[in-house]
Amino acid sequence: MIERLCIIGVGLIGGSLARALRVAGFCKEVVGSGRNPDHLQQAADLGVIDRYDTDPARAVAGADMVVVAVPLGAMESVFSAIRSHLADHTVLTDAGSAKGSVIEAVQRAFGSLPDFFVPGHPIAGTEQSGVSASFPELYRDRRVILTPAESTDAEATARVRAMWEAAGAYVTEMTAVHHDAVLAATSHLPHVLAYTLVDSLARLSDRDEVFEYAAGGFRDFTRIASSDPVMWRDICLANGDAIELLIDRFIEDLQVLKGVVHAHDGEKLLEIFTSAKQARDRYIKK
Amino acid sequence: MIERLCIIGVGLIGGSLARALRVAGFCKEVVGSGRNPDHLQQAADLGVIDRYDTDPARAVAGADMVVVAVPLGAMESVFSAIRSHLADHTVLTDAGSAKGSVIEAVQRAFGSLPDFFVPGHPIAGTEQSGVSASFPELYRDRRVILTPAESTDAEATARVRAMWEAAGAYVTEMTAVHHDAVLAATSHLPHVLAYTLVDSLARLSDRDEVFEYAAGGFRDFTRIASSDPVMWRDICLANGDAIELLIDRFIEDLQVLKGVVHAHDGEKLLEIFTSAKQARDRYIKK
Repeated sequence: MIERLCIIGVGLIGGSLARALRVAGFCKEVVGSGRNPDHLQQAADLGVIDRYDTDPARAVAGADMVVVAVPLGAMESVFSAIRSHLADHTVLTDAGSAKGSVIEAVQRAFGSLPDFFVPGHPIAGTEQSGVSASFPELYRDRRVILTPAESTDAEATARVRAMWEAAGAYVTEMTAVHHDAVLAATSHLPHVLAYTLVDSLARLSDRDEVFEYAAGGFRDFTRIASSDPVMWRDICLANGDAIELLIDRFIEDLQVLKGVVHAHDGEKLLEIFTSAKQARDRYIKK
Repeated sequence: MIERLCIIGVGLIGGSLARALRVAGFCKEVVGSGRNPDHLQQAADLGVIDRYDTDPARAVAGADMVVVAVPLGAMESVFSAIRSHLADHTVLTDAGSAKGSVIEAVQRAFGSLPDFFVPGHPIAGTEQSGVSASFPELYRDRRVILTPAESTDAEATARVRAMWEAAGAYVTEMTAVHHDAVLAATSHLPHVLAYTLVDSLARLSDRDEVFEYAAGGFRDFTRIASSDPVMWRDICLANGDAIELLIDRFIEDLQVLKGVVHAHDGEKLLEIFTSAKQARDRYIKK
């Protein structure tokens, strides 16, 4: 149970968490913070938060749980702003899509890694953004990964875990390095590919016609290219090394496939496509 | 109005066309053909076809419309089998996803391009296949592209157009070469990328974990990797030149993006992602 929850960055991710915890009766008061008072007022009007303060240092006062759900590029300035204003019993966590860069930002802001900070990442989201897109079921049956350091207080980790479980999520733990490698493969690379494909097609001379004849498969395939560009810029900056590695690997595999197409090797094409279909079908069944 | 429709290849595409034309009251009799009598019996049991004959030469007897909806790799043998058995008034069309290769197959089978053959491509489908997945609304408000040659009989083209319009589709015409370039961009390249991505991830050492943490975006992005591998092998063999060109172009663009990630150029990343999001959002609104 949380007495006072402070959410810094009340968008899709932060707003949905607040809504879920309210529905679950897991927190008494929700204080919002963020740069844009209009967005915060909208969150208050929607009943997502009880009150707000655009100054994060004031917003965190007395909170027993602070969740920082701002874009990765804004994390460090938020941590710097709140570092001297947290209560003794405050647990601090975040919802960033890359963990190594957030841990570095906390270290820079606090001078060292505080034992009450629990890095977290809810693997949920839609291509929508903003508090108006938030909904209490966003985390139901979804995974949240926590990447506590060895020095992290076990009780702090347990409280963050309990919060996400109250929101309906399954919580697992792994190292930050491993998290960043896994997410680069399942999320960051696919987004990079979708953005690149749409951008590539948008620069074709017959682009209007090309998009006109795009069918449902294309729509699904490129849905993630409608995601928030600022968020994905920040992820590419924050997890660049892992993403670059996977881009290289993907280009190698694509070169191999091109060679197979060029050689008219139907047997090999069938083998690759069948193996991919089986892998995906197995994963979807789970 | 069609008196006797013969569909060779009663799967998702052929079966959905038969269902749609029945619902529209646009054909009196549907005769199915294909290699597998069990599948044809299933189509008959489902009421998709009235009767069937596994010999396409017998199945086309007396039909005023013959639709060949078999995988691209099986087209030529079907055309060869039926060439001497078509009635004087028969219009012949196909539903292949690449047009240049089908036209070549017809030319080889018939010795030259018959004026009663109208190449066609319904831009519709799901990642499912087989007659059990067919449904009468598959073509509603979807596009069908016809690529008649200059020598094609205008009356034959008009009859094929009327058939697809009765099934609920919008019909447009373009050259086969242009069709193959446009579809390589909107359909063939995305399928190649999705198959390659899933295959690439499936070969990672921590593949089970990678798939376990994949979220909704990944599910959408890779949906087309669950498509029929035989169909996509055939498309890659049939439209290889156009696909190779686009793979090259895509790799170039991906190399550029990787350079931008490596340079930590946030401004350029934001520009690329924003342009892609805007292009996709515009296309989806249409």
